[in-house]
Amino acid sequence: MAIKQQITEMAVQARRAAREMAALSTDVKNRLLLAMADGLLAKADFIKQENQKDLEAGRAKGLSAAMLDRLELSDKVIDAMVGGLHEVAVLPDPVGEVAEMAKRPNGIMVGKMRIPLGVIGIIYESRPNVTVDAAALCIKAGNSVFLRGGSEAIHSNLALAKVLQGAMAAAGIDPAAVQVVPVTDREAINVMLTLEEYVDLIIPRGGEGLIRFVSENSRIPVLKHYKGVCHLFVDDSAEQQMAVDLIMNSKTQRPGVCNALETLLVHRNIADSFLPVVAKALTEVGVELRGCEETCRILSGTKPARNDDWGKEFLDLILAVRVVDDLDGAMDHIVEYGSQHTEVIVTESYRNSQRFLKEVDASAVMINASTRFNDGGQFGLGAEIGISTTKLHAYGPMGLKELTALKYIVYGEGQVRS
Amino acid sequence: MAIKQQITEMAVQARRAAREMAALSTDVKNRLLLAMADGLLAKADFIKQENQKDLEAGRAKGLSAAMLDRLELSDKVIDAMVGGLHEVAVLPDPVGEVAEMAKRPNGIMVGKMRIPLGVIGIIYESRPNVTVDAAALCIKAGNSVFLRGGSEAIHSNLALAKVLQGAMAAAGIDPAAVQVVPVTDREAINVMLTLEEYVDLIIPRGGEGLIRFVSENSRIPVLKHYKGVCHLFVDDSAEQQMAVDLIMNSKTQRPGVCNALETLLVHRNIADSFLPVVAKALTEVGVELRGCEETCRILSGTKPARNDDWGKEFLDLILAVRVVDDLDGAMDHIVEYGSQHTEVIVTESYRNSQRFLKEVDASAVMINASTRFNDGGQFGLGAEIGISTTKLHAYGPMGLKELTALKYIVYGEGQVRS
Repeated sequence: MAIKQQITEMAVQARRAAREMAALSTDVKNRLLLAMADGLLAKADFIKQENQKDLEAGRAKGLSAAMLDRLELSDKVIDAMVGGLHEVAVLPDPVGEVAEMAKRPNGIMVGKMRIPLGVIGIIYESRPNVTVDAAALCIKAGNSVFLRGGSEAIHSNLALAKVLQGAMAAAGIDPAAVQVVPVTDREAINVMLTLEEYVDLIIPRGGEGLIRFVSENSRIPVLKHYKGVCHLFVDDSAEQQMAVDLIMNSKTQRPGVCNALETLLVHRNIADSFLPVVAKALTEVGVELRGCEETCRILSGTKPARNDDWGKEFLDLILAVRVVDDLDGAMDHIVEYGSQHTEVIVTESYRNSQRFLKEVDASAVMINASTRFNDGGQFGLGAEIGISTTKLHAYGPMGLKELTALKYIVYGEGQVRS
Repeated sequence: MAIKQQITEMAVQARRAAREMAALSTDVKNRLLLAMADGLLAKADFIKQENQKDLEAGRAKGLSAAMLDRLELSDKVIDAMVGGLHEVAVLPDPVGEVAEMAKRPNGIMVGKMRIPLGVIGIIYESRPNVTVDAAALCIKAGNSVFLRGGSEAIHSNLALAKVLQGAMAAAGIDPAAVQVVPVTDREAINVMLTLEEYVDLIIPRGGEGLIRFVSENSRIPVLKHYKGVCHLFVDDSAEQQMAVDLIMNSKTQRPGVCNALETLLVHRNIADSFLPVVAKALTEVGVELRGCEETCRILSGTKPARNDDWGKEFLDLILAVRVVDDLDGAMDHIVEYGSQHTEVIVTESYRNSQRFLKEVDASAVMINASTRFNDGGQFGLGAEIGISTTKLHAYGPMGLKELTALKYIVYGEGQVRS
């Protein structure tokens, strides 16, 4: 009950602050972001000192070296947060944009105005830099942000919030617009997810377990993606060297991320000639192949794929490879095993390129390009707060615009409805 | 368990059919809608006969005359459904529209393509015509629709679905794209709301109780509005005759709907002169006023408003009236009591009109126009499936576009990420 009361009270304050945030001018928001960046630099010692507490507790708990690395607020990480604040400060302000104004027969002008969403809840795991990166985007879009990080980063997150709030208070802006939940109990998440009266959107960032938990328990809309199982289909009309280059980039440029390639689909007509070429390139750089029966026949010695290798997010130098009969076979496979993240066709056929583009349901559908382009920066959004594979509100990388909504506006001259 | 299995199986079929629906050409969809209209006319006797079963059961259960009226599928209601199908057939098809194509520095072209949402679940109460009206919009937007109407209309809803499915089968389209859940048990709703793997969106239509139940229990995104508590603020700069006309239209043109006016806010500077004029006009047509202390002082004999009259959706010829200090006082009242539906300012002040437009958070914010314009038809959407007061995905009237999503598309020439 105490936790519920505490968190509800914080959310009420965030909601109140949201009204002030929505009315801030672009200049004021930009200056605030730069002041926050200055604050992080000025208070770097304090931040690192608080971060040490988390690192020590993490070592005592036996966290892995990778986990401790993600947890650490080194000078480099602090510089990156500062750079992020500067980048967001120069992005165009989406709030107030008016679009689609049109005159109705009775003379009223009807259009839409872009407005902040209100209060955005971010539920995240170990990386404390999310506290700053997410807050920056939410603030620029005129929102309050309500952050709940992992227990292992609690001192770091609270320290960062204190610095950000210091900059807000100095600018005369209600610091309740940026709050970190100080309760590490899991119960805090449960409470947050019921506060639909005060929180407009939840964005979970972390492992699939956390995201499923949030999604299944939230009364508030959730924007999320569970995983990225990206496919690339090599059509029989493909320019084969281009296909090899795209596969190599998609699979190996950064294998541990959600827009890396996980399954290669190859048209039966070219499998005999193409598979040996691409397999050579992949295995030379250490990629393990797991093939369908036909693939294993062509590439003798290839490890056979198990049923659960289709649709699997390896996040590693492993690639499932399947020979399909044609474009329809490829699209059937994607319907069955895809995660609606990123799907690519490599083709020189106009007809097949257009069919793939129209018929495949994913947040990004591409012709002759690397899966790795499905990213806010690459798509020109400036910065992203995550990728959505739910179609409602946002599908794909989410930038500043996805942290806003459109309301209808009407300019009248006294018109009444008859 | 049997119910769960049955409904899940229906949803799986709806999901499968959605892929076919998404690929249908505009022509095929339009012809299907017209064939459905012909089917309703050809099978009118069958529909009315099944509807009789519901009407008889309703009478036996003691439903009110108003409820029975909503339940009846008279020739007039059937004609209206036929007309609705014709109207939707001539609306532009939103699916496939491509927008915002832009070239990135590396030469890839990135843009967005409008696609169907997939499977739309509609949970509604007594009016069986919703079965046809909602199905028409979902089909035109390339979706499957999964309908769960009230138990009192079950024979009517199943009969309508049978006719629609007959038209689909005759056109060679999978009838699973339009299904009515035959289970009247409340459990059917509970099951539907957990099928996030197969259903993309839930739209509840009915009373606040149903909508809250759906909202609190759904794992699937829900677009909804609980109620419309619309305010109109008469600024001290308002043209007073215009204000009277707008108030009369907003309050009395159709008092029982969500975009009717419920609370009038009047600037203190003009209250003494304006309130008697507007009160006379309102009371002459039978509107009951419930005033704040100041209103009751000016209009002696006016019934004092109780605390719960602020923010109340009367849906009747009753109007709460409050005198406020200024624009900020009006906006404070709206923040506290508004339902984010429709808010109007009547003013001749440029500054106040712009502040109200920017700062008020509602699905439609209007200057010098009747609240009654917040409507899909009036806004030029062609037809609406409801109004959303949740800001995510859609805010305001929802037409065909709101039954679609945007995916990213990329045209490349072999580009890789460096």
